[in-house]
Amino acid sequence: MNRLGKQTIHFDNPPTIVETASIVGPKEAQGPMAGYFDQCLEDEFWGEKTWEKAESKIIKETVNLAITKSGIPATNIDFCFAGDLLNQCISSSFGLRELNIPFFGIFGACSTFVEGMCLASICLEAGAANNVLCATSSHFCSAEKQFRFPLELGNQRPPTAQWTVTGSGAAVLSSNGNGPFITHITPGKIVDMGIKDANNMGAAMAPAAFDTLITHFEDTGRKPSYYDAIITGDLGHVGKDILEDLCKTKGYNINANYDDCGVLIFDKSKQDTHSGGSGCACIGTVFSGYFFKQLREKKINKILLMATGALTNATTSQQGESIPGIAHAIAIENEKC
Amino acid sequence: MNRLGKQTIHFDNPPTIVETASIVGPKEAQGPMAGYFDQCLEDEFWGEKTWEKAESKIIKETVNLAITKSGIPATNIDFCFAGDLLNQCISSSFGLRELNIPFFGIFGACSTFVEGMCLASICLEAGAANNVLCATSSHFCSAEKQFRFPLELGNQRPPTAQWTVTGSGAAVLSSNGNGPFITHITPGKIVDMGIKDANNMGAAMAPAAFDTLITHFEDTGRKPSYYDAIITGDLGHVGKDILEDLCKTKGYNINANYDDCGVLIFDKSKQDTHSGGSGCACIGTVFSGYFFKQLREKKINKILLMATGALTNATTSQQGESIPGIAHAIAIENEKC
Repeated sequence: MNRLGKQTIHFDNPPTIVETASIVGPKEAQGPMAGYFDQCLEDEFWGEKTWEKAESKIIKETVNLAITKSGIPATNIDFCFAGDLLNQCISSSFGLRELNIPFFGIFGACSTFVEGMCLASICLEAGAANNVLCATSSHFCSAEKQFRFPLELGNQRPPTAQWTVTGSGAAVLSSNGNGPFITHITPGKIVDMGIKDANNMGAAMAPAAFDTLITHFEDTGRKPSYYDAIITGDLGHVGKDILEDLCKTKGYNINANYDDCGVLIFDKSKQDTHSGGSGCACIGTVFSGYFFKQLREKKINKILLMATGALTNATTSQQGESIPGIAHAIAIENEKC
Repeated sequence: MNRLGKQTIHFDNPPTIVETASIVGPKEAQGPMAGYFDQCLEDEFWGEKTWEKAESKIIKETVNLAITKSGIPATNIDFCFAGDLLNQCISSSFGLRELNIPFFGIFGACSTFVEGMCLASICLEAGAANNVLCATSSHFCSAEKQFRFPLELGNQRPPTAQWTVTGSGAAVLSSNGNGPFITHITPGKIVDMGIKDANNMGAAMAPAAFDTLITHFEDTGRKPSYYDAIITGDLGHVGKDILEDLCKTKGYNINANYDDCGVLIFDKSKQDTHSGGSGCACIGTVFSGYFFKQLREKKINKILLMATGALTNATTSQQGESIPGIAHAIAIENEKC
């Protein structure tokens, strides 16, 4: 591997994404992406007594499904990178405690899925591992309960608010394979532009997405048109518009091939999800369910996948803090380069 | 690098720990390690209005100190791995938001410091980075408030309870250097033996420490006597005894050269800290303050450093769950091997 520019790494023998899996909740099952997920749940509990236990079950079953689909025995998977939104990442650690695979817990809020794929790619190309699992989850009910208000209150939500996706996405990566390949990674810096509105995460995260995206273009010399798709998750409608505008200030027009998983997963006009989807599982499920298959079927061949996270919690909001954002990007291509 | 046995990686060109830094709170300043830390604070607030803001300041200043001591310009540090015990790892993300270094948030509870050094070592040997920063923090007051009871209640603590260390440890690692070298890493699996007592973390984590330690010995063919010191953090007095006993069941006697940072940082007879210290900063400060200097001064030459984490939170305890543990080990040696 070699470093390009400020913060991008190019892989000479890029790792392959062998398989993905996705399980989503009932709201996502009513959205436009429903047909692409491996499984849609009928309710938010899935037979468990609490939302937290349900979220653990969702990530556990998604991971099992990804491993089964990959055809790689679990005993041949060297590392697992996983994390989620719950305090102390309990969805991942409880859901995956029987996995018996060396475990690296990660926390990047909604950027976790791509953060894991960045680190997995380094491990694979370095020879530290032959096969690596990456997983993440989120759950609307457990997230609302933890970050905002008890659901039973029925609080109103402002138009800038996003709807946490219930679900899990998982991917099995391998040093051997025929693609799709992770050819580049651009890990991001923390960027805090002073946004304090916890109901406007898109605005808080867009500057971090902008920083990572422009850095990726500058480091690689690529232009937006190089990619068949530039996909963020999860800026939502508000953050997507901000990112498009910010890019123009640097002379990059991404509008032609840019979209956001938070925009894609729900139907804004029918589902009352305001600015769109969010949560670790938003990009996790939309990539695993939809974009990975588009890549494998050669409907698209080059995608820049960028996950954004708001590194905040309820305590910092109550203490008057602003919301630091972060974004990690990976280039996934059907040809090595 | 090459994989050894089940889950150990050996580095051919092992990374050097260039420098470390440690800042601790007033309780730690009264303990037997006080003289080794870079700075001891007079109170738990350090001029901030909340404990969370104080913890962020502690990790920020510790990181700045480690970078300054290393002589490596911050602009030459390629990645930062950091995490802590606070919900959504806010100490790290708020404390390091102005760092302007690509940031990987990690969560391994009290295993976070060594988890970061494992991943940093892979990145350095792989050529993904030339210099990497690893940092962690914990704070007695913010941890008690979040995980247990309001401090104002003055709750009694059982004899198995540990005392969260207030402080931060940070290390700057480089692909170039003359040691001490990280020669091997053995990342651990999640191990849950069914312990449910949130006031007995040592017992919950000891089986994970046992699993990683025996795996390290088996993977490398090394015996406990190979090391000048085998150091865990933070099993405390209770967990240390359990680990020693568990090792004997597999024919390994570690008693001669084994100690635990939770045991070392406080004086049990005078400080009313029951089973000893805990928290991410326990191994972070004791390694950064004491063992790193012992290595650099060649007072010891081979250390196996193993950080243990309890991957739990207040919600899982309330829902009747047991406590999953994890332990990551790294071998640090003055000679490459």
